[in-house]
Amino acid sequence: MKLLRYGPKGAEKPGLLDADGKIRDLSGVVSDITGAELSPASLKTLAAIDPATLPLVEGSPRYGVPVNGVSKFIAVGLNFADHAAESNLPIPAEPVLFTKAVSCLQGPNDPVMIPRGSEKTDWEVELGVVIGSRASYVTEAEALDYVAGYVLINDVSERAFQIERGGTWDKGKGCDTFGPVGPWMVTSDEVGDPQNLSMWLDVNGQRKQDGSSKTMIFPISKLVSYISEFMTLEPGDLITTGTPPGVGMGQKPQPVYLKAGDEIRLGIEKLGEQRQIVVAWSKEGVQ
Amino acid sequence: MKLLRYGPKGAEKPGLLDADGKIRDLSGVVSDITGAELSPASLKTLAAIDPATLPLVEGSPRYGVPVNGVSKFIAVGLNFADHAAESNLPIPAEPVLFTKAVSCLQGPNDPVMIPRGSEKTDWEVELGVVIGSRASYVTEAEALDYVAGYVLINDVSERAFQIERGGTWDKGKGCDTFGPVGPWMVTSDEVGDPQNLSMWLDVNGQRKQDGSSKTMIFPISKLVSYISEFMTLEPGDLITTGTPPGVGMGQKPQPVYLKAGDEIRLGIEKLGEQRQIVVAWSKEGVQ
Repeated sequence: MKLLRYGPKGAEKPGLLDADGKIRDLSGVVSDITGAELSPASLKTLAAIDPATLPLVEGSPRYGVPVNGVSKFIAVGLNFADHAAESNLPIPAEPVLFTKAVSCLQGPNDPVMIPRGSEKTDWEVELGVVIGSRASYVTEAEALDYVAGYVLINDVSERAFQIERGGTWDKGKGCDTFGPVGPWMVTSDEVGDPQNLSMWLDVNGQRKQDGSSKTMIFPISKLVSYISEFMTLEPGDLITTGTPPGVGMGQKPQPVYLKAGDEIRLGIEKLGEQRQIVVAWSKEGVQ
Repeated sequence: MKLLRYGPKGAEKPGLLDADGKIRDLSGVVSDITGAELSPASLKTLAAIDPATLPLVEGSPRYGVPVNGVSKFIAVGLNFADHAAESNLPIPAEPVLFTKAVSCLQGPNDPVMIPRGSEKTDWEVELGVVIGSRASYVTEAEALDYVAGYVLINDVSERAFQIERGGTWDKGKGCDTFGPVGPWMVTSDEVGDPQNLSMWLDVNGQRKQDGSSKTMIFPISKLVSYISEFMTLEPGDLITTGTPPGVGMGQKPQPVYLKAGDEIRLGIEKLGEQRQIVVAWSKEGVQ
């Protein structure tokens, strides 16, 4: 099942994608898609609905973040051996965690805005995990039972803010528009093994990242278990699980960063695709 | 004006503290205290109410977090020169930021639970800032206009998780129960100058921290302005602004950490006091 939210920013309605790739309106069934709708019981109820009985949504509406009310957006750094190498950093002994501000969350195709003064805005295609059940100190063996589904995420990053401004990486990870998510959340049962999904990212039609979740250093079961030792994960919480090689910072002979007018396209097998146009900073944002 | 939320966990009601230190029930006026109730206009409306016209709350109910629906809990590290010294870290050139998971937020007098396997759970009395208006790229001169008020916070920290587990500090800062806030939010007009407030913390009746917000390296106006360059601050967001010397990690001749049964008391001038009993880890938490 592919759950989604569609419509204008701040007024999204819940929907699901039918077998023909058409949006069906779920607003007669649930008022929104939040953590509460992602429990195993709720997902079972939604999965029992015949999509053909739901109203067909005409046209091509905007997609929003597939889950509303995300309380935590936790990120894993350096989780692909080749990406750690291109970042000139050692392979971590245990998962590296940081936090993306939830205010950076946005729809999958909304513009990405370069922050004021930024010269090092970068891309990162990532596999996102959506928590379905409250998870505290869960074992690796049971961890995937707490996952409702998976999403495509662009973990947009400002490298100078992240690395050159002191303190933690959080400064360069949570700028407005730095968290495109979606277009939909694909439930775990439909994804199957999350550790064998190809993932790619193009900038202006040029392939930059081309990898697979099978080369993750720490698999998703480990990550969910590990994070749940440091904080309780709530339904709807997002974990973005690291990026394969090919980010702008790692380009040869020198780094390449995003500039206004660039087009980013990215995708993960089974999870759909995103397209963002990069825009210059403005005080008013991109609302 | 002192705004607060009182009652059982998850079922708190909005209230305010009257001039006699009694709780008055605000639930006939607003359904809750969230970011929406903290705008300058909303605060003006609330301030115009004569507390004597509000129902008096009998007894001594539990206090909850004074603001519900906090979307971001941003923390500033090493913001007191003496504390940087006791941590054996240089005075930062610009503010050090990290993130506390919002799932760690709790009432000011709720028990603090030592995480599983922790041997280095520590205390930090801190002055918390509550955002009242959406703040993006605000100047230092205007920054305090975006602040609704101030709160007392214990930035409970696990030093091994924070420092010895790789990656950012976030691992040791957001464990469940690590964010006692309150008992109330005192509006900016009543606090006056936030850079001249004494702050203290006792463990088992022994004074451990004894400082003042006047020795902050970066004042609150700078912090709000600075953070707003990296992310948009939303009404109800919390910033905790660093701790003065005297944390457990800095005790001589050797560090002293919290253990089950310890009593923590802390306070900040004008912002009230907190008292927490430390409890051992249990799978069920302290709910």
